[in-house]
Amino acid sequence: MTRLHIPVRLRWSDLDAYGHVNNVEMFRLLEEARITAFWRHPEAQDDPWPTAVLESGPQASSHTLVARQEIEYLRPLGYARDPITVQMWIGHIGGASLEVCYEVFDAVRPESAQSASPEPRKPCARATTTIVLVDAVTQSPRRITTLERAAWEPYVEAPAVLRRRGA
Amino acid sequence: MTRLHIPVRLRWSDLDAYGHVNNVEMFRLLEEARITAFWRHPEAQDDPWPTAVLESGPQASSHTLVARQEIEYLRPLGYARDPITVQMWIGHIGGASLEVCYEVFDAVRPESAQSASPEPRKPCARATTTIVLVDAVTQSPRRITTLERAAWEPYVEAPAVLRRRGA
Amino acid sequence: MTRLHIPVRLRWSDLDAYGHVNNVEMFRLLEEARITAFWRHPEAQDDPWPTAVLESGPQASSHTLVARQEIEYLRPLGYARDPITVQMWIGHIGGASLEVCYEVFDAVRPESAQSASPEPRKPCARATTTIVLVDAVTQSPRRITTLERAAWEPYVEAPAVLRRRGA
Amino acid sequence: MTRLHIPVRLRWSDLDAYGHVNNVEMFRLLEEARITAFWRHPEAQDDPWPTAVLESGPQASSHTLVARQEIEYLRPLGYARDPITVQMWIGHIGGASLEVCYEVFDAVRPESAQSASPEPRKPCARATTTIVLVDAVTQSPRRITTLERAAWEPYVEAPAVLRRRGA
Repeated sequence: MTRLHIPVRLRWSDLDAYGHVNNVEMFRLLEEARITAFWRHPEAQDDPWPTAVLESGPQASSHTLVARQEIEYLRPLGYARDPITVQMWIGHIGGASLEVCYEVFDAVRPESAQSASPEPRKPCARATTTIVLVDAVTQSPRRITTLERAAWEPYVEAPAVLRRRGA
Repeated sequence: MTRLHIPVRLRWSDLDAYGHVNNVEMFRLLEEARITAFWRHPEAQDDPWPTAVLESGPQASSHTLVARQEIEYLRPLGYARDPITVQMWIGHIGGASLEVCYEVFDAVRPESAQSASPEPRKPCARATTTIVLVDAVTQSPRRITTLERAAWEPYVEAPAVLRRRGA
Repeated sequence: MTRLHIPVRLRWSDLDAYGHVNNVEMFRLLEEARITAFWRHPEAQDDPWPTAVLESGPQASSHTLVARQEIEYLRPLGYARDPITVQMWIGHIGGASLEVCYEVFDAVRPESAQSASPEPRKPCARATTTIVLVDAVTQSPRRITTLERAAWEPYVEAPAVLRRRGA
Repeated sequence: MTRLHIPVRLRWSDLDAYGHVNNVEMFRLLEEARITAFWRHPEAQDDPWPTAVLESGPQASSHTLVARQEIEYLRPLGYARDPITVQMWIGHIGGASLEVCYEVFDAVRPESAQSASPEPRKPCARATTTIVLVDAVTQSPRRITTLERAAWEPYVEAPAVLRRRGA
C-alpha cells in the first residue's frame, strides 16, 4: 500500500467568509496535487515525483480531460502556513483513463505530532477524479502506454470509499 | 416535473488554456446557480426565485455547508457572452439536508433555436450537491422548516443519474 | 464626452470575509469589462460594443498584453444581483498601446434611482490599464490600425485622475 | 537597505491561455506576500517574519483596507515548481497607512545561479500597495502603534519607481 504524500500550500484567498477553505477551492487543491504528481515540467527545478511521466507544455503530444469528480467534505479545513498534505493513489487504471483518489489532511501541529496519538488522523476530505488521456492532435482518447502503466502501477490501491449519495 | 432554469454568466477567466471552462470553475458556476436559487439577498433588486427562502448576511440565523459533490463532464463548455443555463432541481429533501441536482447547458445559438430540432439538447455536465443547514449560533445541523419544505417541494424530482465510478 | 457603460455581474465568490468585493477581484471585473468592450467573439450572440474590433480565439492575428495598472478604491463594493456598471473610456491612444480608464459604480437601487438626486453618484473605484497590441506570430508590439483607431477615437476623453501615491 | 525576500508558490491555475501568470493573478501573489509578511497567524507553525505584528482572525482588533495599487509588468512570469521571490519593503509609513513596495522575481534556475553573473537580475513586475489600518469596531482608520512602527521601520527604503502613466 503506497500512497504519494503531496504537500500543497493554502492561500489566504482559498478561505470563504466562514474562515474555511471554500468547497470549490478544495478542487483547486486537488488539481494542484494532481499536476504535481503527474506532469513533468521542463522548467521545474525539483525532482519530479516518480509518477510524473506526462509531458506538459504547448509541444506535449497528449493532454488530460477530467471526466468525473466526486468529493465528500468531512471536517472544515482552516488556514495554516505549513502546507497541507494530499495523500494520493490510483484506484483503477483503465485503457485510456485512470481514477485518482485523494485524502486531504491539514497541516500537523508540532504539539499534536509529539503526542503519542494511538489513533490515525482523520482526513478533511476524500475525493476521486477520473482523468482521460487525450491525443493533442486528434483530440481523441489514446491508450495508456507501457511506460505510463509501469510508473503508475506501484500506486494502485483499493479506490477511496465515499459515502453513498442520499446517505 | 418542474426545474428551475437559472442563467449564469461566464467570465473569460473561467476558461483554461484549452479555451474551455475549467473543471474547477464548473463548480463555481454551480455555486452561483445555487446561491441565486436559495438565498434571499436584502440588497438584490430583482424578484427572487420561489425557492429563495434562506436569509443571507451576517445576521442570518443559519448557513449552509456543502457535504458532498459529484459531477460528470459530458461535453466541453466554450465561451459565450449570453448566459449559460443551469437547470436545477431537488433530488431529495432530508431532515437537515437536501440534495441539489443540476444539468448545465451552453447558451443556445439563435440559428439552432430556430431550427425545428426534434431532439432535446444534451447537457455539458450533470452534477449533484448535498447541502446541510447549520444553525449559525450552535454550528450544528438544524431541521428544515415547514416554510422551507413548502417552498422546495414543488421542485423535487428524481435525482440526477450520473455514470457509475469506474464505468 | 462619451463613455461606454458596461454591465458586469458580480459573483458571490468575489466577496472577501468582510462581505465586500476583494481588492484583487476588482481587477477581474475590470478585465471582464475590457474583454466585453474590445473583443469580438465569433460565438457571442449579442451585438458587440462599437469598440469591439479585436478578434479573439486561437486564430487571432494579434493579442494584448497588460503593461501597467493603477487603481484607487474609494468605497467598498457590496454584493448585488443586478450588474454593476463599469464606465469605461480611453485616456490615450499611442502607436501600439492604449490607456483604458474606468470608474466602477455599484448597482442602483430603484428607490435611489427614483429620487431626484441632484448630486452625481460617486464611483467605488477609479482605475487605468495600459494595454499593448502584440502580433501573435512575432510576439512583438504592432501598430494600431486605422480601423481600430477609428473605432476607438469617439471614446477618447481626458485620462482618469487618481490620487497621487503617498497622498 | 533591507528587503524581505518572501517565497510564494505559483499554482497551475495562475496561468492564462498564453502560459504566463495572468495580470490579475499577479495581484493575488502580492496579496499572499503581504499576508505572509504582516499577519501573525495563531495556527501557523513557522516562525513569523519580523514584520508580522498584526493579529489575524475574527477576534482581531484591527484589519486592513487596500486603498490604492499600482503595478508595471516588465517580463512575463512562467510556471515553475520552485517558489518565486517577492522582494518587499516599505516605501512610506504614514499616520494610519503604509505604502508597501514589491519587486517580483521568478524562480532562479540552478545553472543560472551557479554562473558568476555580474549583472543583477531584472524583476518581472514592480508594484506598490497603500494599506490603511482600520479599527475593527469603529471601522475607522486608526493610528499605527509604536510597536508596529518599530517592527516596520528597518524595512523602510525609497519607494519603488514605476514608469509614468502614458510613458
